[in-house]
Amino acid sequence: MIPRYSRPEMAAIWTPETRFRIWFEIEAHAADALAEIGTIPKSAAKTIWEKGGKAQFNTARIDEIERETKHDVIAFLTHLAEFVGEDARFVHQGMTSSDVLDTCLNIQLTRAADILIADVDKLLAAIEKRAFEHKMTPAIGRSHGIHAEPVTFGLKLAGYYAEFTRAKRRLVEARKEIATCAISGAVGTFANIDPRVEEHVAKALGLEVEPVSTQVIPRDRHAAFFAALAVVASSVEHLSLEVRHMQRTEVLEAEEYFSPGQKGSSAMPHKRNPVLTENLTGLSRMVRAYAVPALENVALWHERDISHSSVERMIGPDATITLDFALARLAGVVENLVVYPARMQKNLDLLGGLVHSQRVLLALTQKGASREEAYSLVQRNAMPVWRGEGDFLTLLKADKDVTKYLAAKEIEELFDLGYHFKHVDTIFRRVFGRA
Amino acid sequence: MIPRYSRPEMAAIWTPETRFRIWFEIEAHAADALAEIGTIPKSAAKTIWEKGGKAQFNTARIDEIERETKHDVIAFLTHLAEFVGEDARFVHQGMTSSDVLDTCLNIQLTRAADILIADVDKLLAAIEKRAFEHKMTPAIGRSHGIHAEPVTFGLKLAGYYAEFTRAKRRLVEARKEIATCAISGAVGTFANIDPRVEEHVAKALGLEVEPVSTQVIPRDRHAAFFAALAVVASSVEHLSLEVRHMQRTEVLEAEEYFSPGQKGSSAMPHKRNPVLTENLTGLSRMVRAYAVPALENVALWHERDISHSSVERMIGPDATITLDFALARLAGVVENLVVYPARMQKNLDLLGGLVHSQRVLLALTQKGASREEAYSLVQRNAMPVWRGEGDFLTLLKADKDVTKYLAAKEIEELFDLGYHFKHVDTIFRRVFGRA
Amino acid sequence: MIPRYSRPEMAAIWTPETRFRIWFEIEAHAADALAEIGTIPKSAAKTIWEKGGKAQFNTARIDEIERETKHDVIAFLTHLAEFVGEDARFVHQGMTSSDVLDTCLNIQLTRAADILIADVDKLLAAIEKRAFEHKMTPAIGRSHGIHAEPVTFGLKLAGYYAEFTRAKRRLVEARKEIATCAISGAVGTFANIDPRVEEHVAKALGLEVEPVSTQVIPRDRHAAFFAALAVVASSVEHLSLEVRHMQRTEVLEAEEYFSPGQKGSSAMPHKRNPVLTENLTGLSRMVRAYAVPALENVALWHERDISHSSVERMIGPDATITLDFALARLAGVVENLVVYPARMQKNLDLLGGLVHSQRVLLALTQKGASREEAYSLVQRNAMPVWRGEGDFLTLLKADKDVTKYLAAKEIEELFDLGYHFKHVDTIFRRVFGRA
Amino acid sequence: MIPRYSRPEMAAIWTPETRFRIWFEIEAHAADALAEIGTIPKSAAKTIWEKGGKAQFNTARIDEIERETKHDVIAFLTHLAEFVGEDARFVHQGMTSSDVLDTCLNIQLTRAADILIADVDKLLAAIEKRAFEHKMTPAIGRSHGIHAEPVTFGLKLAGYYAEFTRAKRRLVEARKEIATCAISGAVGTFANIDPRVEEHVAKALGLEVEPVSTQVIPRDRHAAFFAALAVVASSVEHLSLEVRHMQRTEVLEAEEYFSPGQKGSSAMPHKRNPVLTENLTGLSRMVRAYAVPALENVALWHERDISHSSVERMIGPDATITLDFALARLAGVVENLVVYPARMQKNLDLLGGLVHSQRVLLALTQKGASREEAYSLVQRNAMPVWRGEGDFLTLLKADKDVTKYLAAKEIEELFDLGYHFKHVDTIFRRVFGRA
Repeated sequence: MIPRYSRPEMAAIWTPETRFRIWFEIEAHAADALAEIGTIPKSAAKTIWEKGGKAQFNTARIDEIERETKHDVIAFLTHLAEFVGEDARFVHQGMTSSDVLDTCLNIQLTRAADILIADVDKLLAAIEKRAFEHKMTPAIGRSHGIHAEPVTFGLKLAGYYAEFTRAKRRLVEARKEIATCAISGAVGTFANIDPRVEEHVAKALGLEVEPVSTQVIPRDRHAAFFAALAVVASSVEHLSLEVRHMQRTEVLEAEEYFSPGQKGSSAMPHKRNPVLTENLTGLSRMVRAYAVPALENVALWHERDISHSSVERMIGPDATITLDFALARLAGVVENLVVYPARMQKNLDLLGGLVHSQRVLLALTQKGASREEAYSLVQRNAMPVWRGEGDFLTLLKADKDVTKYLAAKEIEELFDLGYHFKHVDTIFRRVFGRA
Repeated sequence: MIPRYSRPEMAAIWTPETRFRIWFEIEAHAADALAEIGTIPKSAAKTIWEKGGKAQFNTARIDEIERETKHDVIAFLTHLAEFVGEDARFVHQGMTSSDVLDTCLNIQLTRAADILIADVDKLLAAIEKRAFEHKMTPAIGRSHGIHAEPVTFGLKLAGYYAEFTRAKRRLVEARKEIATCAISGAVGTFANIDPRVEEHVAKALGLEVEPVSTQVIPRDRHAAFFAALAVVASSVEHLSLEVRHMQRTEVLEAEEYFSPGQKGSSAMPHKRNPVLTENLTGLSRMVRAYAVPALENVALWHERDISHSSVERMIGPDATITLDFALARLAGVVENLVVYPARMQKNLDLLGGLVHSQRVLLALTQKGASREEAYSLVQRNAMPVWRGEGDFLTLLKADKDVTKYLAAKEIEELFDLGYHFKHVDTIFRRVFGRA
Repeated sequence: MIPRYSRPEMAAIWTPETRFRIWFEIEAHAADALAEIGTIPKSAAKTIWEKGGKAQFNTARIDEIERETKHDVIAFLTHLAEFVGEDARFVHQGMTSSDVLDTCLNIQLTRAADILIADVDKLLAAIEKRAFEHKMTPAIGRSHGIHAEPVTFGLKLAGYYAEFTRAKRRLVEARKEIATCAISGAVGTFANIDPRVEEHVAKALGLEVEPVSTQVIPRDRHAAFFAALAVVASSVEHLSLEVRHMQRTEVLEAEEYFSPGQKGSSAMPHKRNPVLTENLTGLSRMVRAYAVPALENVALWHERDISHSSVERMIGPDATITLDFALARLAGVVENLVVYPARMQKNLDLLGGLVHSQRVLLALTQKGASREEAYSLVQRNAMPVWRGEGDFLTLLKADKDVTKYLAAKEIEELFDLGYHFKHVDTIFRRVFGRA
Repeated sequence: MIPRYSRPEMAAIWTPETRFRIWFEIEAHAADALAEIGTIPKSAAKTIWEKGGKAQFNTARIDEIERETKHDVIAFLTHLAEFVGEDARFVHQGMTSSDVLDTCLNIQLTRAADILIADVDKLLAAIEKRAFEHKMTPAIGRSHGIHAEPVTFGLKLAGYYAEFTRAKRRLVEARKEIATCAISGAVGTFANIDPRVEEHVAKALGLEVEPVSTQVIPRDRHAAFFAALAVVASSVEHLSLEVRHMQRTEVLEAEEYFSPGQKGSSAMPHKRNPVLTENLTGLSRMVRAYAVPALENVALWHERDISHSSVERMIGPDATITLDFALARLAGVVENLVVYPARMQKNLDLLGGLVHSQRVLLALTQKGASREEAYSLVQRNAMPVWRGEGDFLTLLKADKDVTKYLAAKEIEELFDLGYHFKHVDTIFRRVFGRA
C-alpha cells in the first residue's frame, strides 16, 4: 500500500482513527446488550454511547499508553475511559481483545468489499457503454495472436462485461465469507459472556454470528476472501492485456487516452505508451500474491496462534487498496479509450480476405465440388495472397475453375462480414439482457 | 498426480477413455440438435448415437492417427468414423475443436467436484460422530500453544465441522463456476453453427450455456475453481495440524489409529508417528500451489492463446486427484482417531488449577475485594504453582486473606469445569442444528 | 509430470529402478566404509557389491514386501537380501532409512541438474548461432510495445544469451545446494554409526558431507534448488514471449518452424500459430508454482517431520522433467526459428522514419537552433507522418526552416541506421567474448 | 511495509530523499565520464558535483514539478538545475530515464542486501554463543513430534547456525545478482552515449556493467534476488517454529524473554506467549509471497514494458524492510531465549528410558541373544512403561531372561547419554571450525 496507488475512501478504512471508531462501536453495542441482560446498568450503556460517541480518539495518546501496557486494546480502553469517566468500568465486560479485533477486521473487510463492488459496477457501466457504441464495429478475432475470423469490438467488450459480472458475484460472495461477528471469550466458550451479546452486536453491525469461534474467527474465511480478490485482479490483468495488445504500434486499434499537454517521452516525442494498463498488469500480480500468505494463515495452532496477524496487518490494506485503485483506473481506461475503427478494418483486411477462406470452401462443396477439389481451389488462390501477390477476392473471381461453380456475384457475397455478425444480438441479449 | 496419492474413481475421470467418451457425447448431442434444426438428417444423428454408443474407442489407434494429423480432435473424429461409417460426415458440423475440448474439461471438472463434495460429506459425517461422542470431554484450550481456558474436545470438532461445511459450500460454488458449455465456433460468433445447438448440448449434459465464449471458455472460471480447491486444502491442513499437535509425545491427547501389526520404526520400536496427517500437510501445500498457475491462466491473448492448456493438463488431474485423496484420508483419520480423555484431563490439570485464576479474581471482586487486592491475592497463590510448590486450590483455601472473602466450599465451586461448558449446547445447536 | 511433456533421460532418473539402484550404491559404499573401519567383514562388503551389483531389482516384488512391512526401505533391504544372501545382515548397519532416502533424493536432483545444465548449454549454442547470423539484421526496438529506436535482431538474441548464461550459473549453484550426503542416524548424532562412513559415501558419490543433519538433510537447500528452477523457467517464458510477439500477424518478424505437411487449422487453412512458445509459457507457470511448496517445506518440526515427503514425491519429478522438456523445446524453437529480415525492415520503416526524430533534434541544436525551435521544427514535420501524409525524410528536406540549418545530404545522413549499430560489436564482445 | 515492522536504517534506503541523492550521484559520475571523454566541459562536471553535492533536494518541490511534467526524472533534473545553474544543461547528456532509475534501484537493493547480510551476521553470533553455552545440554530429539533419541540443545542450534550460514551465502549471491549498472540509452544500443560512461559510473558506484541492457536491466536478476530472500525468510520461520514448539505449555523447554513488567494477558495472568516467533512466522509468509510477482516480472515485452515497476515500488521496500525486521527480531529472540535444561531433562526422561531401547536390543544381540528373542525381551519390558507401570531400567534389571545376558551394571551403562553425544565435537568442528 503506497500513496501512489491509493484512493482516499479505501485508505480511510485502514486508518487508526477508523479502527478505533469501530472498536468503540463494538464495545458500545455490547454494552447495550449487557445492559439489556442486566449485567451492567442501562444508564452506563447510555453514557458510553453519549460520551464515547462524541470523543475524538487521539492516536498519539493511545500509542503512548500502548508503549506502557504493550496491549493495543487495553490502551484504547484506557483512553476511552478518559472520555466516558466512571462508567468506563462497564465497558468490555467478559470480553476478550480478539472479540473486538476480529470483529473489527471483518467490518473493515466488508466495507472494503462494498467499495470494490461499487468499483466493479462503475467498470461494468463503462464497458457496457463502449460495448454498445462498438457493437457492430468490425475487428479481426485472433487466436494465438494470429488472425482467425471476424468479430466486432463490441463482442470483445461483451466478453469482458460477462467476466466482470462474474467478478462482482465473486466479491459479493467474498463479502459474505467475512461478514461475521464473534464475541465469545478467551477460547470461544462464552464462559464469561452471554451469547446474546454476540447476537445483538452482530445484528447491530449488519453481520452474521460466527457459529464457532475459538478466540479467533476461523481464517479459512479470510483465505477465501483474499483468493476471490486474486481472481478479480486476474480479470483486471486480462482486460489490461487486451488494451496493451491493441495499442502496440503494429496493431494500434485502440489507445489509452492521452491528455493534450501530456508528453510521451522527452527523448522520443513520437511515443504514446499504454502505461496505465502496464501498471495494472503489475498491480494485478501484487493482489494475486497476497492470496498466498492468506492461504497459509488458515492452519493456526489449536484455538489460535497469532501468526496470521502480521500478515493481515499488511495484506488487509495492501490487497484492498491496490485492487480498488486498479478497478478505478481500469474503469477510466475503458471510459476514455480511444478506438480506431478504421485501423480495425485495415487489420481485418490485412490478409487480403483470407479470413473468408473457410466460407468459400464450404460454398464450393455445396455447389458440387468434392471436398478435395474445393480445398485445392481455395489453397491455390490463397497462396499468392500470402506472398503479397494480389487479394483473395480478385484472384478467385479470375479463376475459371472456381467460376465454374460460383458466379462473381456469389463469390462477393461470401465476403460478407454480416455472415459473421448475425448472432451479435443473441450474444448481447445473453450478456446485457438487451441488444 | 502419482498413483500413491490417487483414488480410482477420481483418476478415472482423467483417463483418455473417459475423455473420448465425453467427446463422443458432446458430438452426439450436437448431432441431435443439428438434426432437429434440419442441418443434418435425423437418421444420421440416430446412427451416430447407436454406432458410436457401442464403440470401444482405442486410445492406441487414436494416438496413431494423431501422430499423422498432429491434431487430437481430428484423430478422434477419424477413429469415430471407423465405427459410425458414412454418417460420420455429419459429425462436428460447424464446430471447432475447442467447443469439444473446453466443454469436455468442464464436464470433467464438474464430475471431479461431485466427488470432492461427496468426500467432504463423508468427512463431515465422521467429524459429527466424533464431536457428539466427545461433546463433553474436557480438554484444555490453547492460544499461542499455551494453556488458556477449558474447552471440550467436542467443541474443537464442532469448529472443524463448521469449517468443512463452508468447504462444501465453496466446492458447490466452484462447481457452478465451471459447469458451462460452449459450442460457438472459431471465435465465438456462431458464424457456422446455430446457438440452439449449444443450448441443446448444455441442457443434455446438465451445464449452463457460456454467455460469451471466444473459442475458449473464459479462464477466470477455472481460476476461481482451483482457488476454491486451495482454500479447502488449507482446511485439510488445519485439521491435520490439530491432530499432529495432539499426538506429539508431551501432549498425546489423541493418536492416528495404528493397526495391530503396524511397525512404527524398525530401529525405535516405541515410535507411533502421525504420518497420515503429516502427509496431508504436504498434499495441502501442493493443492494450494496449483492455484497459482490457474490464476496466471486468466489473462489470455485476445480471443485465446493456448498457454493455459499445458497448465490444465497437469493441474486438472493433479489438483482434483490430490484433494480427493486428502479428503478421504482425512475422513479415515477422524473416524479412527484414538482419543485419550484421561490424558486430556491430565493436561488440563497440568497448571494445577491455574486455568481458573480469572474466575477466582472475579469472585473476589464480587465479594468486595478491590480489583488490586484481588489481583494480588490471586497472584501470590499462583506463583508457587508455577514453581511446582503446590496446587492452586489448596493454596487458596489455606490463605486467610482469601478465606475472608470466600469460604472453602465457595472456592471449590469456582473450580467447576461446568462453568466453562454451559454453552456447549448453544454452540452445537448452531453448528449441527441439534445438541 | 505427464508423458506429453517428458523426455526419457530425465524421466529415467525418477523411475523406481533408478531409485533402487541408487539405494543399493549408497548401501554398498557404506558397507565398504564399515568394512574399512572393522565394523563388518571386508568379505561381506565385497559380496554385497558383487551380488547386489548384478541384481535385477524387481519393483513388483519390492511393492509386495512393502505391502506387508509398510516400509519402503525395509522392503528393499529384504529384496536385496534375496540376492546377497547371508551377508545381507551386514547391510545398513547403524543406518537410518532417511540416510538412504535423503542422500538418494540429492543424487537424483544433482543428476537432474546436470541434464538441465546441458539443456541450457544447447540452448545457448542455438542462441549464439542465430545471434551471429543476425548480428546486423536491423529491427525496431520497442518499449511498452511501441516503436522506440532501432536495434538488431542479433542484439535481442545477445540479451537472451546473457540471460541464459545467468540461468546456467544459477543451475550450477542450485546443484551445489543439494549435492550433499547424510549418513548420521536417527537424529543426526552418529550414535550408532561412525562419521567416517558418511565421509566415505559422500566422496564415493561425488557429494559433500552435510555438516548437520537431523535425520533429514535440511530443506532450505531444496527450497533454494526449486526456487532457482523457477527463475530459470521465468527466463524460458521471457524468450517464448518474444517469439510469440514476433509471430503475431501484424508483426510477423519471425515464426516457429512449420514442417511441410503440418496443418495449422482444419477449418482455417491460413493459420500458423506459435503453439510451441505458448506451450512453454504454460509450462513455465508450472515450474514457478512448484517453488511455492518447496519454500513451505523448510520449516519442519524439530529434528524432522515428514510433510516435505509427499511434496517432493511430486515436485521432484514434475519440476525437473517439465523444465528439461521446456529447455529442450525452446532450443529447438530457436534453432529452427524462421526469421523475416525484410519484414523487420518494413516494421522499422512503419513510422516513416520517425524513429530518427531524436537525432534530427540534436543535429538542429548543434547547428545553432535553440532547443525550443528545433523541437518545434521536428514536431511539425512529424505530425503529418502520423496522419499518413508523407514520410519524415521528404518532409524535412522540403522544409525551408530546416534546410536553413541542415543540407539535404546532412539530413539524409541522420537517417543512417549505422549510427545506432556502432556499438553492436562492443555488446557482442561483452556477451560472447567475440564480435 | 508498515512502521510497526520497519527499522530506520533499512527504511531510510527507500525514502524519496535517498532516491534523489542516488540519482544525483549517478548523474554526477556520468558527468565526470562525459567530461573525460570530452562531450561536456570539465568545469561543468566540477560544478555539478560542487553545487549538487551541497543541495538539499526538496521532495515537495519535485512533486510539484512532476505534477506538471508527469515525469519523475525530468522533475528531478529541473529541480537539480535550480541548484546547479547554467551548467545543468550538461547533466543527463545522451542518457535515458531508465539508466538512472534502474541503476538506482540496484544500488538500493545492494545496500539493502548489505544490511540483511549484517543482520544474519548478528543472528549467527547469537546462535553461536547459545550453541556453545548449551553444547552438552541434553534434550530429546524428535521426529514427527514424537520422541526419538537424545540430542543436545547445542546440536539443535548448530543446525540453525549451518542453515543461516547458507542464508548468508545466498544473500551474498543475491547481492551480486543485482549489483549492476546500465547507462545504455533508449533501447540499450549506446546510440547517444559512449559505453565508457557506463563503465565509469559502474566502477565509481561499486557495480558491474550490465552486459546487455535494453532500456532496462533484465528482471531475471531481480527475480533471483527476491527468491533468495524468500528462502532466507523460510529459514527464519524454521527457527521460529522451533522456539514456538519449545515454549508450548506441555514442552516448555525454552521461552521467549519476558521483561519483568510485561503482562501476558489481562484476563489470564498465567499466560506467557511466544508472540515474537509467531509474528516472525507471519512475516516469513509475506517475504515468501513477494517472490511470486518478482518471478512474473521476468517476461517483459520486447525491449521493456513497465509492468515490473509497480511491483517493485511495493516489494522493493516491503520485502527488504520486512526481512530486516524479522532477522533482527530473531537475533533478539535467540540472544534472550530463556532455556530450561531441567525441563529438557525431564522431557527426555518422559518415556522412562525407552529412548534407549535400540541400544539394549543391540547389546542383547551382541551377548548372544537371537534378534527375535532380543526384540521380544525389550518389548515386554517396554510395554509396562507406556502404561505408566514402572521405568524401563528397573524393569529390565528385574527380568531374569534379560539378566542372563546382561549384568545390572552392564544394563545401566546402556542408559548412558554420553553414548549419543560422543560426536557432538565432530559436528561442532564441522559447523563452527572449533568444538
